[in-house]
Amino acid sequence: MTLRKTLLAAVAVAASAFSVQALADKTYTLRLAETWGPNSPILGETTKHFENLVETMSGGRIEVRIDSANKHKAPFGIFDMVRNGQYDMGHTASYYYKGIIPNAMYFTTIPFGLLAQEQYAWFYHGGGMELMQKVYEPFGLMSFPGGNTGNQMGGWFRKEIKSLDDLKGLKMRTPGFAGEVMSELGVAVTNLPPGELYTALERGTIDALEWVAPALDFPMGFHQIANYYYSGWQEPGAEVQFLISTKAWNKLPEDLQEIVRVAMRTAAYDMYIQSTNDSAEAWDKMKEQYPQVTHKVFPPEVIDALRETTHRLLEEEAAKDPLAREIITSQRDYLKKVRKWTNISDKAYLNSVADQ
Amino acid sequence: MTLRKTLLAAVAVAASAFSVQALADKTYTLRLAETWGPNSPILGETTKHFENLVETMSGGRIEVRIDSANKHKAPFGIFDMVRNGQYDMGHTASYYYKGIIPNAMYFTTIPFGLLAQEQYAWFYHGGGMELMQKVYEPFGLMSFPGGNTGNQMGGWFRKEIKSLDDLKGLKMRTPGFAGEVMSELGVAVTNLPPGELYTALERGTIDALEWVAPALDFPMGFHQIANYYYSGWQEPGAEVQFLISTKAWNKLPEDLQEIVRVAMRTAAYDMYIQSTNDSAEAWDKMKEQYPQVTHKVFPPEVIDALRETTHRLLEEEAAKDPLAREIITSQRDYLKKVRKWTNISDKAYLNSVADQ
Repeated sequence: MTLRKTLLAAVAVAASAFSVQALADKTYTLRLAETWGPNSPILGETTKHFENLVETMSGGRIEVRIDSANKHKAPFGIFDMVRNGQYDMGHTASYYYKGIIPNAMYFTTIPFGLLAQEQYAWFYHGGGMELMQKVYEPFGLMSFPGGNTGNQMGGWFRKEIKSLDDLKGLKMRTPGFAGEVMSELGVAVTNLPPGELYTALERGTIDALEWVAPALDFPMGFHQIANYYYSGWQEPGAEVQFLISTKAWNKLPEDLQEIVRVAMRTAAYDMYIQSTNDSAEAWDKMKEQYPQVTHKVFPPEVIDALRETTHRLLEEEAAKDPLAREIITSQRDYLKKVRKWTNISDKAYLNSVADQ
Repeated sequence: MTLRKTLLAAVAVAASAFSVQALADKTYTLRLAETWGPNSPILGETTKHFENLVETMSGGRIEVRIDSANKHKAPFGIFDMVRNGQYDMGHTASYYYKGIIPNAMYFTTIPFGLLAQEQYAWFYHGGGMELMQKVYEPFGLMSFPGGNTGNQMGGWFRKEIKSLDDLKGLKMRTPGFAGEVMSELGVAVTNLPPGELYTALERGTIDALEWVAPALDFPMGFHQIANYYYSGWQEPGAEVQFLISTKAWNKLPEDLQEIVRVAMRTAAYDMYIQSTNDSAEAWDKMKEQYPQVTHKVFPPEVIDALRETTHRLLEEEAAKDPLAREIITSQRDYLKKVRKWTNISDKAYLNSVADQ
């Protein structure tokens, strides 16, 4: 009997109590904090999907424990909690941390920026991942694409926007960089917690608001108050984010690192595809049940002003910091190239089959 | 000493000779045949990418052995070779097997059909995967999305197409269902091996040809002969295919099945993103180096005739077979819904930022 056979015999004796697999394999726990509340559609489904992928592929050697915002109470504190070791991972959005790291803003989406597939191409082939790591590495963190919402809508308006003048004094909820741009055009920008939006719009505390896209807008009920639903300019492909601490990452053996990396990548793509499906479903139902809802596009003078302002504000950011300039330039140059291709492929096709 | 500790001690004795991991883990080989030649850009990179993902995630428990067409000599025989057990897996395109299974045609792309992200949404949320399995299951096979080329171009033309009359008698290489449609409009459709295309176009044996998109067209050199590069209608999001025999699949334990499934899914998405990047790069270079190359769209009367003919031929297929009708109806209904969303999101955005 060889040593191998002897050992196998010993293993067989023990087989009813525990498996060789369990003996051989150390197990790991990844504690993940998400910005979203419990059972959040699309976003929360993405972390659960990630958990299932990791646990099944690792044969149970990794356990993912997800805490939603109701548990950790810090929806916009994910960056800090992963940095200080309270959690190993996070699922959040890079642009929420603009206050701590100004350059985090560019890795979610920017106004007049890249579409989802163009942005994935920038991340994986145009230097985007390397630039994102440059920003997160000093904090002991790694950042990965975490799922795309698809193109976000420009928002719900109670009155039609026919000119730049119609924006002046308009009270609108629109946060972040897009809010800064709108503010430059005379919009009275406010931010309100999600739970107050419906009532604020109904009572006229605000005249307009921007949320996400039909999949997440429909459950909020805004279409019952505002009739005009505008196409977007401000978040053409918002990519949320997986954060993982380098310390937690380095504890994993190579095969489990790859399982985690690939699970994040697939879960991110899958979120984009789910968003596409769910917004298509929601828009279809909304149009059927609420025929008064009217789709609009902003007039060219409004789009031009928004774009000029966006470019001016980005130029101001670039002037402040060399890394900001490097990121902004990389995205702008990549967009110029990839958009030419999108224009002769998908755009030309969509325009040629206009009535479909 | 507990039984567990005794066994661990025995394991420690043997540790220098072989690892517990090696004892515990049976290894598997997956022999994969691909339609493509060796070192085929994008397509062949996708199977190598799949191999790397599977081997790294499985910690070497799965070995993937890829044979290119130069080895197995049957680029369009992948379906048969996987079905009869000569290979465990294949990387090919479903529509190549229309002659054996007419309903295989619908799972790659159809004229005037879904864009890449719309089609992934149909596969994963609109019933597409289930319909594909209905078609492949009777042959002991499972089929999965294997990577998207992105929107394919309508082709290279030596003369401009200004009307339907310009198509009559035009000698064009365009295979498959699109060739049937073109043929109905009076085009003299021919098929030629890839290696003969350049010379045939140069000598006037053909007046036009359709290949893929800039990423794969540029290396073929057609732009040196034909100046007009038309946007497409015939393959809006061609998805190639992973085939795996149910027998090979069932031999794998659950964790390795999930590793293979997720590696296929990620490799497929990644191919779409690589195609996006590579076509953007190639189109950029082509325009710079060959400024005479002119992008064109077919005039509306040509598009309308192509579309009417496509719908008539699809209706004929649907009338022949209930499963064909089920698939065609599912795709048509899904397209109607998802395209409305694409139109108010990506299309509206692309049109509003026209000069970018």
